[in-house]
Amino acid sequence: MRRRVAILGATGSIGTSTVDVLQRLGGREAFEVTAVTGARNVALLAEQAVALGARVAVTADPARYDELRARLSGSGVEAACGTEAVVAAGASADWVMAGIVGAAGLAPTVAAARNGATVALANKECLVAAGSFFLGAIEEGGATLIPVDSEHSAIFQALDREAAPERVILTASGGPFRDWPLEKMRAVTVEQAVAHPNWSMGAKISIDSASMFNKAAEMIEARWLFDLRPEQVEVIVHPQSIVHSMVGYADGAIMAQLGPPDMRQAIGYALSWPGRAALPVARLDFAALARLDFEAPDETRFPALRLAREALRAGGSAGCALNAAKEVALEAFMAGRIGFLDMAGVVETAMESLSSHSAAASLEDVYALDAEARRVAEARCAAST
Amino acid sequence: MRRRVAILGATGSIGTSTVDVLQRLGGREAFEVTAVTGARNVALLAEQAVALGARVAVTADPARYDELRARLSGSGVEAACGTEAVVAAGASADWVMAGIVGAAGLAPTVAAARNGATVALANKECLVAAGSFFLGAIEEGGATLIPVDSEHSAIFQALDREAAPERVILTASGGPFRDWPLEKMRAVTVEQAVAHPNWSMGAKISIDSASMFNKAAEMIEARWLFDLRPEQVEVIVHPQSIVHSMVGYADGAIMAQLGPPDMRQAIGYALSWPGRAALPVARLDFAALARLDFEAPDETRFPALRLAREALRAGGSAGCALNAAKEVALEAFMAGRIGFLDMAGVVETAMESLSSHSAAASLEDVYALDAEARRVAEARCAAST
Repeated sequence: MRRRVAILGATGSIGTSTVDVLQRLGGREAFEVTAVTGARNVALLAEQAVALGARVAVTADPARYDELRARLSGSGVEAACGTEAVVAAGASADWVMAGIVGAAGLAPTVAAARNGATVALANKECLVAAGSFFLGAIEEGGATLIPVDSEHSAIFQALDREAAPERVILTASGGPFRDWPLEKMRAVTVEQAVAHPNWSMGAKISIDSASMFNKAAEMIEARWLFDLRPEQVEVIVHPQSIVHSMVGYADGAIMAQLGPPDMRQAIGYALSWPGRAALPVARLDFAALARLDFEAPDETRFPALRLAREALRAGGSAGCALNAAKEVALEAFMAGRIGFLDMAGVVETAMESLSSHSAAASLEDVYALDAEARRVAEARCAAST
Repeated sequence: MRRRVAILGATGSIGTSTVDVLQRLGGREAFEVTAVTGARNVALLAEQAVALGARVAVTADPARYDELRARLSGSGVEAACGTEAVVAAGASADWVMAGIVGAAGLAPTVAAARNGATVALANKECLVAAGSFFLGAIEEGGATLIPVDSEHSAIFQALDREAAPERVILTASGGPFRDWPLEKMRAVTVEQAVAHPNWSMGAKISIDSASMFNKAAEMIEARWLFDLRPEQVEVIVHPQSIVHSMVGYADGAIMAQLGPPDMRQAIGYALSWPGRAALPVARLDFAALARLDFEAPDETRFPALRLAREALRAGGSAGCALNAAKEVALEAFMAGRIGFLDMAGVVETAMESLSSHSAAASLEDVYALDAEARRVAEARCAAST
C-alpha cells in the first residue's frame, strides 16, 4: 500500500524540497501523490505533478488554469484551480505537507487536520495566528501534527516520550545584524536585510530573520506545538545555525538536535516519523565546524522577541495581531516607507489595539482579526511615513 | 511497592552520588535498599547503610568486618563481608548500581545480570574486558543494561527507539595535555597527569583521561552497548565537556545530550528510565557558556585511541588485553618506572601477545586472560625500566 501524500505549496522552497525527498524515498513507487498545489509557477507545478504521477495539480490562481491544463495535457494528471480546489487537496491525503506561506495556507491545512491526516506543518499562520483554533481542528480530526521548521523539528526530535520538557531553547542565527549597534540598525536597508548568513531563503523570510520576527513567530509556535508556558520558551543566539534547537528536562539534561542547514532532514523526518529514512544530506564534521557560539539575544535591538514574550503572556488575539501587523510592517519597510526598527512599533500598536479581542474560534474570526490588525498597522505605517 | 535497589561500590565516587540521588528521589520511603557494598571505608559504608535503611552492608574486605559490625550495632542493618557476600548483594535487587571499579566488579555485576535486574553500569571491565560474555549474561537473565558513564548515558539518552544509529560520537575533554607537543608529553609527571580540567576524579581515572585510555575503553564499551561496527565509533575532542556525546542518524540528524559535569544526572536517568525525575543539578546557561569547541583527536599524541580502534577491529581478547595491560602500565607510570607515552607501548605489546586468544566465555576465562595480559605487560615494563 502506497502512502497517500499531498503537497500544499509544492513550488515554494519547502515544496520543492518535499518533492526532492519524496523522489529520493521512492517517488511514485512508494507514494500515491493525491495532489500538488501551487500558485503562479504552473510550469514547475506541472513538471512536479507529472514526475510524481499526482492525481491532480491545483493552481490557486484561476488565471493560470488554462496554462496548467495545457501543460498537463496527455499526462494523466488532472488540472484544477481556485481556493476550494486547494482546500480539497488538503483533505485528499493521509500525509499532507502544509507548505503554503501566509494566511492562504490556513484553510487547506485546517482541512487536512479535520481529515485526520498527518500534517507536516511548514505554514506559520496556523499556530501563530490561530493556535488554539488550529489545535482544536487537529484534535477534532484525530490528526497528527509534525513540525517542519528546522527549530521545531529539532525540538520534536529531542522530545522524550516519557518526560515533559522543562524548557525549550530555540536557537537563532542572529541574522546579519547580530552584532550591529542600535544606531546602525536604524538605517538598515532592504538589501542589507535580505542577506542571511546561513540559509538561502526568500526576501521576506530573510528580513524576518534579520529582525528576529521569525523567531518571535517561532516562540509562539513552540508554545502551541509543545504545550508550554511562556517562561518555558527561551531563545539563544547561535550564529552557526548548527544546533537547530534544544529541549531541557527536569533532571538537568539538555537534548539537542544538530545538522547542516538542509530542510530535507526535517521534511524527511516528518515523512518517516516515528522512524528515520536515509537521506543524502551532508553529515556534520565537528572538527571542521571547530566551534559553536552562543549569546543572549538583545531585546533592545531585537524588540520582536520582547513582543513575542508579551504575545505569549497575553494569549487571545495577540499572536494573530503580531503576525498580521508584522506582514504590513514588512511590506512598508520593503517599500521604504518605514525604517527597519520601526517595524516593531507598528506591531506593538496593533497588538495593543486588538488586546481586548479574544482568540479566534473559527477561520472567519482569524480572517477578521487579521484584517483588523492589518488596518491598524497600515494606519500606523501611514502616520509614520 | 518500593523498588528494590542495591549499590555495589557505595563508598566510591559513583556510589556516593547514587546515595545522594536515592535520598533526593525519596530515600528509604521510595526505595527498599537490599544492600550496599564497599571495601575499606566502612565508616562511610555504615553511615550510608543506616541512612538508607539497607538490609545489609557488605565490606569486600574481611579484615574490616568487625569494625563494620560494630558501627552497625543496634541499627538493624546486617553486616557481611567477603567476595561471595558482594556477589550475593549483586543478586539481591531489581535495580543494581554496578559501581565497583576494576575486575572486582565483574562477578557481582554478572550476578545482577543473571538475576534479571536493571543494571546501571559504571564498571568498565564488564564491557571492555568481557563484552561478549557480559552481554550474554544480560540476555540470559533478561536483564536491562543502562550505562551510567556520562558519555554512554548521553548516547543512551540520544537513542531513537525507531532508528538505529549511523554513528556515535564520543566527546573527550582532551585532558590537560590536549594541546601539548609530543616532546613535552614524553616528560609528563604524575602530578601533571592527575589535574583534570573539568571533572573532579581519582588519580587513576584522571591519568586515564589525560592519556585518553579512558576514551579508548569507552570506545570499546560503546561498541558493545550499542551494537556498533568499529567504524561507527567516533571520538571528537570537546574541551568544555558540555556535550556529553552524540548520535548520528541516516537522515543526517545528530542528537546530542548536554549537561553540567554532574554524574547525578546520568545516575538519576538510569534510576528513572524510561522517565526522568527532577534533580537539583545545575541548569546549563548557554549565554554564559558562550562557546563549545571541537577538534579532531591526535592519535600520535594519544595512541590509546589507535589501540582502541585496533581492539575494536580485532575483537576476541583484545579488549581484555588492553584493559589489563593499561592497569599495569598505569601503575608503572605512577611508580615512575615508565614514561607517560610508554604506557601505549606496554598495552600494544600485551594486545599483540594475546592476539591469538579468543574472547572470554566465562569469568574464569576473563581472569585468566587478564592475568596473562598483566604478566606480559609487567615483563614489558620491567624491560623498559
